[in-house]
Amino acid sequence: MTAIPGNSGFDPSTLRYNDQGLVPAIAQDHASGEVLMLAWMNEASITETLASGHVTYWSRSRGKFWKKGETSGHVQRLVELRIDCDRDCLLLLVEQTGPACHTNRRNCFYTALREGHEVEIMAPEGS
Amino acid sequence: MTAIPGNSGFDPSTLRYNDQGLVPAIAQDHASGEVLMLAWMNEASITETLASGHVTYWSRSRGKFWKKGETSGHVQRLVELRIDCDRDCLLLLVEQTGPACHTNRRNCFYTALREGHEVEIMAPEGS
Repeated sequence: MTAIPGNSGFDPSTLRYNDQGLVPAIAQDHASGEVLMLAWMNEASITETLASGHVTYWSRSRGKFWKKGETSGHVQRLVELRIDCDRDCLLLLVEQTGPACHTNRRNCFYTALREGHEVEIMAPEGS
Repeated sequence: MTAIPGNSGFDPSTLRYNDQGLVPAIAQDHASGEVLMLAWMNEASITETLASGHVTYWSRSRGKFWKKGETSGHVQRLVELRIDCDRDCLLLLVEQTGPACHTNRRNCFYTALREGHEVEIMAPEGS
């Protein structure tokens, strides 16, 4: 059991992680309902997110913590964490500052399939 | 290139699958914005979903196609498929018939962390 300030009743080790110790986490804008992105968390990044209120993923490509927005300023403040029925996926309701996507778009799902073709439905912010 | 009726401009083999040949797919209610569930798709299930308009996942536990709602009647009709910036995650905008969760709840994320404790925030339908 990992001690989390203010979260003493929740034990992140009870979640079901994959063989790399990760669970997928969906970030959703708490006010608009917009799905912003999907990234991955391990037990330590969940603990850090709950302790700080600042969403922190695990970067699979870099193999280290990814404190969302640390470089860009496009932080995600955690509003509420939800757990799915199988305990192997998280839904993070967040307050997003700036664009969530590294391409500078508001969310990562800016490519839609329409009439059989990929269509870009959202431009980078400020462009 | 897999031929998909009406989707000749999209090739599902261009997505980035994990080492099991799968991508996570988030199902979101197209009208309300509610995040319903997360499940997994392989190339064949994406092809099937696009061809039929009936969301079909790949069941990791059963190792076979999972035509959502085939047994329960709680089908998902695909309204739009979106692809994320890394091409390794899908967002499915769907029209959900009945509850999406196998527990008979409208969505799978019915457990919230509030004041440090897990709280059930949604009851099964009809109960």
